[in-house]
Amino acid sequence: MTEKELIALAGARFGKRRPAFLKVGIGDDCAVISFDAKHDLIVTCDTLAEGTHFLKGTAPELLARKLLAVNLSDAAAMAGIPLWGILSLAAPKNVPEAFLKRFMAALGKEAEKYGVSIIGGDSVRGKDLVLTLTLAGKVEKDRALLRSGAKPGDLVVVTGRLGSTFKSGKHLTFEPRLKEARSLARYFSPSAMMDLSDGLLEDGRRMAEASGVTLKLRGADVPLNAGADLKGALTDGEDFELLLCVPKGNWDEKKAERFRKRFKLELTVIGEAAKKSGESLLLDGKAPQGRGYAHF
Amino acid sequence: MTEKELIALAGARFGKRRPAFLKVGIGDDCAVISFDAKHDLIVTCDTLAEGTHFLKGTAPELLARKLLAVNLSDAAAMAGIPLWGILSLAAPKNVPEAFLKRFMAALGKEAEKYGVSIIGGDSVRGKDLVLTLTLAGKVEKDRALLRSGAKPGDLVVVTGRLGSTFKSGKHLTFEPRLKEARSLARYFSPSAMMDLSDGLLEDGRRMAEASGVTLKLRGADVPLNAGADLKGALTDGEDFELLLCVPKGNWDEKKAERFRKRFKLELTVIGEAAKKSGESLLLDGKAPQGRGYAHF
Repeated sequence: MTEKELIALAGARFGKRRPAFLKVGIGDDCAVISFDAKHDLIVTCDTLAEGTHFLKGTAPELLARKLLAVNLSDAAAMAGIPLWGILSLAAPKNVPEAFLKRFMAALGKEAEKYGVSIIGGDSVRGKDLVLTLTLAGKVEKDRALLRSGAKPGDLVVVTGRLGSTFKSGKHLTFEPRLKEARSLARYFSPSAMMDLSDGLLEDGRRMAEASGVTLKLRGADVPLNAGADLKGALTDGEDFELLLCVPKGNWDEKKAERFRKRFKLELTVIGEAAKKSGESLLLDGKAPQGRGYAHF
Repeated sequence: MTEKELIALAGARFGKRRPAFLKVGIGDDCAVISFDAKHDLIVTCDTLAEGTHFLKGTAPELLARKLLAVNLSDAAAMAGIPLWGILSLAAPKNVPEAFLKRFMAALGKEAEKYGVSIIGGDSVRGKDLVLTLTLAGKVEKDRALLRSGAKPGDLVVVTGRLGSTFKSGKHLTFEPRLKEARSLARYFSPSAMMDLSDGLLEDGRRMAEASGVTLKLRGADVPLNAGADLKGALTDGEDFELLLCVPKGNWDEKKAERFRKRFKLELTVIGEAAKKSGESLLLDGKAPQGRGYAHF
């Protein structure tokens, strides 16, 4: 059972009588909820567990940064503006108070940097350090970018460079693409967007399946991080770059160049969406082997 | 360092430039956020960890019920109406898939009972079972009942009976006082309300400190659960009843009787709020010894 299937079990009961306020439920980077006259609320929740997402001994400042950043990356994926977060912290008795204080102070400081308020939380004793942040933000009414909107003929585009995120430590220090996502939404009106957390293969398949298309990627065009090969770029995971589909008519190389200069960030066309065939994702015309990084 | 002090570290940075949307931040049962023209949004987050909140071997249906109920109890404490929840689940590899499926199905079913949608979540591998639910709801604009509004002269009132919640298993099967809270708000316009999670002593002190009063309680009037003595009623914790302060002029014994009949639930005046003196809480005129149940 995958994580998605598991979470869906609790949400499935609402498939038939979905509440009126719920615009997008389980399955996208954020849930989307009716908010005020001009905005929808977006909500996401990410958990970091010792041993799975970080090793014992990781500095509390890096943990705070990553906990916030993985959630901000989900908000970015919807082209949203983050507003507030609520924390849950489970910690063993032997975690020094100084560690917890450093973590909390760093979380507050990082959150402030992104205009996010930590508005509450819960802390409990556990055998293991487990950190959960629920993050909410806003997006212009009905303008949240979903992963389900890609259409045959759209260009497949990725920000930044992929792969080697664990080896390089980038998985702890990456910059969530919040401003970049807002610009991409304005420049190109993408048909679909998501963040890359489990690797281009796995996440690309998810976008394809949610959209009912096949993504056809060109391996040679996938931008690689220093030290990464194509396999790593496809499957290492935790890139936290944006994957988007752009209707061909909306793509404009001049705007793309403006984006690259403004954000000092790659923006690369790596393939095309096509009519759904047997495989949800093809790499250079073939079904690639391998899955992404499984966090569960 | 207490839990409250810890969580406050991340929120403290916003003391000076509190965002306009945040009406109540860290320190009450829920945070209160500007929502639409008629409502505020209330948000809370509670975590259950194996060994702290439940023992290994507890049925997944009971865990799902409790996880939802502790959060619903926080929504009740604000006189709010719950709307949606977002789940985080950290589970060791050796937890059988059947257990997780039962947990998720039960969570969906319980949530449905209270009109709550599970709108998303995250599941990760951890060494321990740690369950976090973030719950949001709504309340009429500026009508959330806070713990900070008690005034000298107010009556101190409690719903239900207290104590012996672990021995009796009531801590797993309690009913969150959602409808009761809405009625209490209508009947008595309480000046302050909170739910009792850490015991009457500890939580009573919190209400007194938030309100800047001293609560004077009468031990003989504290309603006891079967098998509980006064000490247990004061300190066992996990009662999840409501503690409220009611301006004397708003108290009406006929309405109280109507409440008791309607909900088949005790509603008992157990003391009075007084001008702040040295102690935040007095029991029969004396400062009681002992703290509540510390979950952290």
